[in-house]
Amino acid sequence: MIINFINGGVCAPKGFKASGIHCGIRKNQTKKDLALIVSENICSAAAVYTQNLVKGAPIHVTKENISDGKAQCFICNSGNANTCNANGIEIAEGMCSLVEQFTGIDAKNVIVASTGVIGQPLSLAPIAAGMDELVSLLGDKDENSDAAARSIMTTDTVKKEVAVSFEINGVQCRMGGISKGSGMIHPNMATMLAFITTDAAISPQMLQKAIKEDVSDTFNMLSIDGDTSTNDMLSVLANGMAGNEEISAEGVAFEAFKKALNAVTGRLCRMMAKDGEGATKLLECKTVGAKDKLTAKTVAKSVVCSTLLKAAIFGSDANWGRVLCAIGYSGADLDINKIDVSFLSAAGTVNVCKNGSGVDFSEEIAKKVLSEDEITVFVNLNSGDHEAVAWGCDLTYDYVKINGDYRT
Amino acid sequence: MIINFINGGVCAPKGFKASGIHCGIRKNQTKKDLALIVSENICSAAAVYTQNLVKGAPIHVTKENISDGKAQCFICNSGNANTCNANGIEIAEGMCSLVEQFTGIDAKNVIVASTGVIGQPLSLAPIAAGMDELVSLLGDKDENSDAAARSIMTTDTVKKEVAVSFEINGVQCRMGGISKGSGMIHPNMATMLAFITTDAAISPQMLQKAIKEDVSDTFNMLSIDGDTSTNDMLSVLANGMAGNEEISAEGVAFEAFKKALNAVTGRLCRMMAKDGEGATKLLECKTVGAKDKLTAKTVAKSVVCSTLLKAAIFGSDANWGRVLCAIGYSGADLDINKIDVSFLSAAGTVNVCKNGSGVDFSEEIAKKVLSEDEITVFVNLNSGDHEAVAWGCDLTYDYVKINGDYRT
Repeated sequence: MIINFINGGVCAPKGFKASGIHCGIRKNQTKKDLALIVSENICSAAAVYTQNLVKGAPIHVTKENISDGKAQCFICNSGNANTCNANGIEIAEGMCSLVEQFTGIDAKNVIVASTGVIGQPLSLAPIAAGMDELVSLLGDKDENSDAAARSIMTTDTVKKEVAVSFEINGVQCRMGGISKGSGMIHPNMATMLAFITTDAAISPQMLQKAIKEDVSDTFNMLSIDGDTSTNDMLSVLANGMAGNEEISAEGVAFEAFKKALNAVTGRLCRMMAKDGEGATKLLECKTVGAKDKLTAKTVAKSVVCSTLLKAAIFGSDANWGRVLCAIGYSGADLDINKIDVSFLSAAGTVNVCKNGSGVDFSEEIAKKVLSEDEITVFVNLNSGDHEAVAWGCDLTYDYVKINGDYRT
Repeated sequence: MIINFINGGVCAPKGFKASGIHCGIRKNQTKKDLALIVSENICSAAAVYTQNLVKGAPIHVTKENISDGKAQCFICNSGNANTCNANGIEIAEGMCSLVEQFTGIDAKNVIVASTGVIGQPLSLAPIAAGMDELVSLLGDKDENSDAAARSIMTTDTVKKEVAVSFEINGVQCRMGGISKGSGMIHPNMATMLAFITTDAAISPQMLQKAIKEDVSDTFNMLSIDGDTSTNDMLSVLANGMAGNEEISAEGVAFEAFKKALNAVTGRLCRMMAKDGEGATKLLECKTVGAKDKLTAKTVAKSVVCSTLLKAAIFGSDANWGRVLCAIGYSGADLDINKIDVSFLSAAGTVNVCKNGSGVDFSEEIAKKVLSEDEITVFVNLNSGDHEAVAWGCDLTYDYVKINGDYRT
């Protein structure tokens, strides 16, 4: 099955319009802070949420709104996470009501999200004031998705947007997504948000099953700083306008849909990791030769989460001992004496560890390999044929600066 | 029961001598790199080790040597962890043989440890060459413990040394300890090592029980960067020269011993946390009102491990949302809506969160409180009467610098 990456984002699929504006939640006038994405018709809807016991109010409202597996639009503000506020639910529901008032879409069919400052009351006033403009700017062009993608950014330095075309039973379908990475504008919490649209027809149950399975290999394998946010949410709207027969069970069509979903989410994960707080490099860990999938994933995740390794990667330092250390404390059941480790990048490959012990390597080549901006730590456990990939980034001065800044 | 902190360290208890020299493992001539601590007689010995699957060779040798519950001395080098080396066991056993050769102490009664570079062969030559001087300098004065304490330092900026006197059934006993914190001289791994001596009489079984129970509340509640090292070891020698009746069962005497042990280990933990890699501040989390001990410990540990909070503390930023976030993802089963959070220091107290929501507080006072070099995050779960304390440090530019440096 062929998946083609195409231009645009959430407006690439048929029947979706988007817009984004600055309504005044964020002080910086040049930063958009309110996004709206709507479908012409009611869609199959599904979402996965943060596992943090502390959950943003919008998450509770969204869960309720899509409990019937249906929704028609996304609304998301940046600059305030609407979390740990006494009136959070009321505000989140208020945002949904505003959507109904200005678009006619039932408030119960709205997926609502917020990202930004935590523990500070969110006022509906700027949102209400901005709705007219937000709705008037709705469009299905690439620039409309671009505006929405930029409106959900916090300290992201680049927008995260991707779109693909694929076939289901010979019917051309499209899927697009936007997301935001971990940014901390004082004093908020890193939040990961991803909104995906598709014109493929799929039942709510199968859509939920698809994203639940996908997330375990994509977003749940991504870590910037190990802090699970309070507002994380990945949600999908499938409006069926591509005209394929609705996917209502497992099979070839469902697998095709999952492959397209994975192409979108995997790309978004890499974008988010590379643009992690203060990051200068993407840190990817590919684990192969694992006895089972869980072992492969546990090892890969532990490696990209190692604070010591992240700092070493920033310094282009082939500190493979830190890789072995992270594998050793990962909790995975494995034989350390079978482990081989290599560092890979566009500049080449350097083998640093064989059978759990160091091997001689050229410092010069190692430094060249690790000076690239996309580094892969390749770990072979030599104990089976299962694989996994995890994504992270280096730990830099800017990470400390951005997150250690005084309130100003 | 009264515990008095007294001068000195491992030589404070009767019958212990120590020394430390520069033998040449470390290139820097001004840095000592070899320590020896011996008892006049054979002692009850016990130790706890890293849980990392990757273990330094000295740990395997020490486990074997004290499997009979007996030992008479510690030898430890810095500058090379003797980990992930093909001939590691041979080298570690060689260090024990050198001790026997130069002191007459049975090689099987030696507790051996190494800290420093990982994955680089360790040569016995400099150690062999230094043994004469090392043994000739053995003494029971404070300066001898000082020399040993300095010989196990890597990038620690201050030595960690403590001693206490206490009574068991009216008999005066003493206990002393030295330890090293997490330092990364390229390209090694942070290692935590602690050596404790006491002249109290206690059976090997009860000694092991005492440190196993103590560690769960002390060293296991300490985190600098979340990376569990390959060489961590806490070991104790009890030579019985105080003359108390040997502690061979639970009871008042055992409790007294444990209190003294906790005074020594707790102090060492605070010292290590405050001198964490690049740290400018001690970050302590005190959890109270937990429904059980595990919940209290899980919450406290999660808070001091939060990368986001550690950076905020560096910036003297009262970012309490990050505290709630860390509690939320800690895995502890609790009611977020009952949580109160305050920041404490020598400069005062500031309450930032009540019943899981933010409360107004003075930015000015908060900044003053968090500008101190010892910060306590006080968390009340209001759900019971169990407590716990965890220790960590702030995340600073220097942490990144020290661990991101190129090899030079």
